[in-house]
Amino acid sequence: MGNTHSVGIVEVGPRDGLQNEPELLDTSTKVEYIDRLIRAGARRIEAVSFVHPKRVPQMADAEAVMAAVPRPAGVSYIGLVLNRRGLDRAFAAGVDEVNYVVIATETFSLRNQGMGVEASLDAWHDIAAAARAAGIRVSLTVSAAFGCPFEGEVPADRVLEIVRSALATPADEIALADTIGVGVPHQVRDLAARVAEAAPGVPLRMHFHNTRNTGYANALAAVESGVRTLDASAGGIGGCPFAPAATGNIATEDLLYTLHRSGMRTGLDLEATAATGTWICERLGKTQPPAMLGRAGGFPAGAR
Amino acid sequence: MGNTHSVGIVEVGPRDGLQNEPELLDTSTKVEYIDRLIRAGARRIEAVSFVHPKRVPQMADAEAVMAAVPRPAGVSYIGLVLNRRGLDRAFAAGVDEVNYVVIATETFSLRNQGMGVEASLDAWHDIAAAARAAGIRVSLTVSAAFGCPFEGEVPADRVLEIVRSALATPADEIALADTIGVGVPHQVRDLAARVAEAAPGVPLRMHFHNTRNTGYANALAAVESGVRTLDASAGGIGGCPFAPAATGNIATEDLLYTLHRSGMRTGLDLEATAATGTWICERLGKTQPPAMLGRAGGFPAGAR
Repeated sequence: MGNTHSVGIVEVGPRDGLQNEPELLDTSTKVEYIDRLIRAGARRIEAVSFVHPKRVPQMADAEAVMAAVPRPAGVSYIGLVLNRRGLDRAFAAGVDEVNYVVIATETFSLRNQGMGVEASLDAWHDIAAAARAAGIRVSLTVSAAFGCPFEGEVPADRVLEIVRSALATPADEIALADTIGVGVPHQVRDLAARVAEAAPGVPLRMHFHNTRNTGYANALAAVESGVRTLDASAGGIGGCPFAPAATGNIATEDLLYTLHRSGMRTGLDLEATAATGTWICERLGKTQPPAMLGRAGGFPAGAR
Repeated sequence: MGNTHSVGIVEVGPRDGLQNEPELLDTSTKVEYIDRLIRAGARRIEAVSFVHPKRVPQMADAEAVMAAVPRPAGVSYIGLVLNRRGLDRAFAAGVDEVNYVVIATETFSLRNQGMGVEASLDAWHDIAAAARAAGIRVSLTVSAAFGCPFEGEVPADRVLEIVRSALATPADEIALADTIGVGVPHQVRDLAARVAEAAPGVPLRMHFHNTRNTGYANALAAVESGVRTLDASAGGIGGCPFAPAATGNIATEDLLYTLHRSGMRTGLDLEATAATGTWICERLGKTQPPAMLGRAGGFPAGAR
């Protein structure tokens, strides 16, 4: 086996997965999805976002979801926030962590966040300080870190500049997101090494979409480069409603297959996660789930 | 960029891709598929197999396909053969290379080839010597080299034993196939290194299926481990009719995306290959092609 270390998984299906699905699920189905994920071993779950319901209708019931989810010990709920209003809602809803997004390119930031990168970084400092004062973990995600639908190439130096600028206010974790699924492993290795150097001691997380079938190679390159946490969504559902041609997150069950077969531990159960992925895809009316493990099954047992 | 070397692609869509498709295509469509692949830059094409038409009905017109394909300079056609009868048909049909398959496990070999591994190796010696005497390149593919649907784990030592035994008669190329799509990159690296040591100077090719979303990571691991040739099928069509739950080969266009973005050269055109993949999937009635590049498009140009 190549590695024997542990990899943390942030299950983002309830947030990034669902938010791009056209069919609105009711609150109880979302809560059941989260409950099934926890029973499959998920311990960090990006459960909701606190954004304007007109922009992301699927997240309009964020408070109701958070009020109804189970609260076993050791499970941490993350809420995505984009501004101070969202942060206040996240506090009130009782999340354990908040995740704030800065988009690496000006054009994409203006279109998606309604403000440029500098303004977005200003808001980060305010939000990170407030979260810290409230005793809540706060992570920063740099989106479009591997390429932008509008500007094309995103220089690694640009990503590093944003990370350095943001860390004037400490983050509990830095994440780099391949929002539109264009990255390849050498970018992952390069960025992982350079961010680790620029932000020593800050845990690094990565977030991949499988839009061009690079997501799983990128995920493995990340953990082989020292990244200890990966985002994934059970079923491989999801995308970004504001990114052209974006498709789903890497599927948690398919990621588990590669990691477990590579000798790494995640704490998640492959079969229960695959069953949950199949279940949510059925609920969403997907005839061909992006996740493949549910159809293919795990490594053959070899009973002759 | 991580690498700047050249990677050879064997386009296997016309053989491995089509043979598992339930819809039988007519000869002229197969020839058009091959012609489009050549115009997209393909130079080695596994065009047909010479097996019993009752076992693989899609390949019943192998002679007619070979009689009709274009023959531009520099294009090499490979025919898959499993026995001496197939080899004689391949000679008569005018292929440039033959590819013979030994399955790494006894159970799978008995079920698929109708003979055990030893008998299959005996046939290899006969076929390789005859091909060599006829001046035709001959390659050996070891199938199920990364795992078996019936026996489970396939020890690397077993694969090496087969390679060493086979090479009593020289091969122009050795290929390792992950026939059921269960392999992960550390297996690829391990086998690549060990086969290179056991068979110094013999070019190594690898063949991956994306059944569990590991195919592209495996392909990249292979080229990073010194493997210079990869099999892929435009559109990501294909599978193995005798392997439970096997799905398509890695898609040529999606492989090109990763390789080209990683700084490697292939000689193939990404857009023309993706268009060919989309075209063949439409011909086969696939509403959702396994290949993703045709839907997602390449790396964004970034015209602001």
